[in-house]
Amino acid sequence: MTVSTAAAVKVTPAPERQRDAGRSQAAILVAARDEFAEMGLDGARMEGIATRAAVNKRLIYYYFRDKDQLFQAVLEKAYQHIRNAEQKLNLLNLPPPEAVRKLVEFTWNYCMKHPEFQSLLTSANLHKARHLRQSRARELNSPVIDTLGRILEQGRSEGLFRGGIDPTQLYISIAALTFFYRSNNDTLSAIFGRHLLSPKAKQERLAHMCDLILGYVMRD
Amino acid sequence: MTVSTAAAVKVTPAPERQRDAGRSQAAILVAARDEFAEMGLDGARMEGIATRAAVNKRLIYYYFRDKDQLFQAVLEKAYQHIRNAEQKLNLLNLPPPEAVRKLVEFTWNYCMKHPEFQSLLTSANLHKARHLRQSRARELNSPVIDTLGRILEQGRSEGLFRGGIDPTQLYISIAALTFFYRSNNDTLSAIFGRHLLSPKAKQERLAHMCDLILGYVMRD
Repeated sequence: MTVSTAAAVKVTPAPERQRDAGRSQAAILVAARDEFAEMGLDGARMEGIATRAAVNKRLIYYYFRDKDQLFQAVLEKAYQHIRNAEQKLNLLNLPPPEAVRKLVEFTWNYCMKHPEFQSLLTSANLHKARHLRQSRARELNSPVIDTLGRILEQGRSEGLFRGGIDPTQLYISIAALTFFYRSNNDTLSAIFGRHLLSPKAKQERLAHMCDLILGYVMRD
Repeated sequence: MTVSTAAAVKVTPAPERQRDAGRSQAAILVAARDEFAEMGLDGARMEGIATRAAVNKRLIYYYFRDKDQLFQAVLEKAYQHIRNAEQKLNLLNLPPPEAVRKLVEFTWNYCMKHPEFQSLLTSANLHKARHLRQSRARELNSPVIDTLGRILEQGRSEGLFRGGIDPTQLYISIAALTFFYRSNNDTLSAIFGRHLLSPKAKQERLAHMCDLILGYVMRD
């Protein structure tokens, strides 16, 4: 008994060492997110990440094994971040039309504040999403579809919304309307001769998106 | 009179030489489009383009000066291609709701058949669309907005469409719904656990997009 306790004490890291490890991992994930977003998965270098995180490169390999596993961890963290933020909206406590409007506004604002998110997804798509297929990504992302499905069902049962709307399609559309606008902003501004990220243009875009989505979802 | 005719004959290339030059330029543009779409603007190499086009690299420099000017020419040709195809739809001869539906379907089909188009735009956006700012891109692209504006106005005057819809916003939304779906297909399929490019899924997506756009545009 005494012996095994002693052994346990030996292998268990002290709480402050655990805290340090957690802090190092978090710093590496932030640094990796920035490096991947700026350089793309192919262009990113482990040395660049080590420098940004102010840690030894070997520590990154120790915690995350290789660049692919690190990228997978960064992607999971990115999905977790947007899904956590969505959950805090408490959409299910709102009247259904308000809930839909708030989801559109949230997605728009998130997209504007987090350009790194679409950059990471671009890299993930270039690699045919292989980093997501073995990950927790699906389980992380199903709650938003579940929530939207319940909002649509509630709106329908109140006679406010049309029936037969697939929540996954609608969610993809909300994401498409915002993320495409942001990532193609320079070409769109050039070909249509408008500055599409001016404060006024952003307001107009958000208003159009809300009109489009609510104009479709709601029965007149 | 005789003299000047002789001089004109001397400097005017023979018709077959003009045809050859046109053919070489067209081959270079196709090869450049493929190389830029596959490798991105930064990754593309003039040598790779020369090999694809089966021409001497110096000929590319002779006709297009440098990689940036060549990329600008490829972009212009790409916009011209989609706009020409749109014009052949003769949308103004259709009842307004049919015209909107046809534009959505066309955009979807074009996006599916021409993945190189979004690849080129991705490169253009990475370079902040500087290749478009001095080009004919705006004049090439304004007709589709003009056409859509006339369709919306016609539908409104017939009491079918709601008023106050900005044709540029609506066009960007139609493009967003299709191009985002295509370019983010792998991540979306992974996180939502669906194969989003199966024939059935593509049909469902197109139906959703038509419902969304027409459900918004039309007054019930």
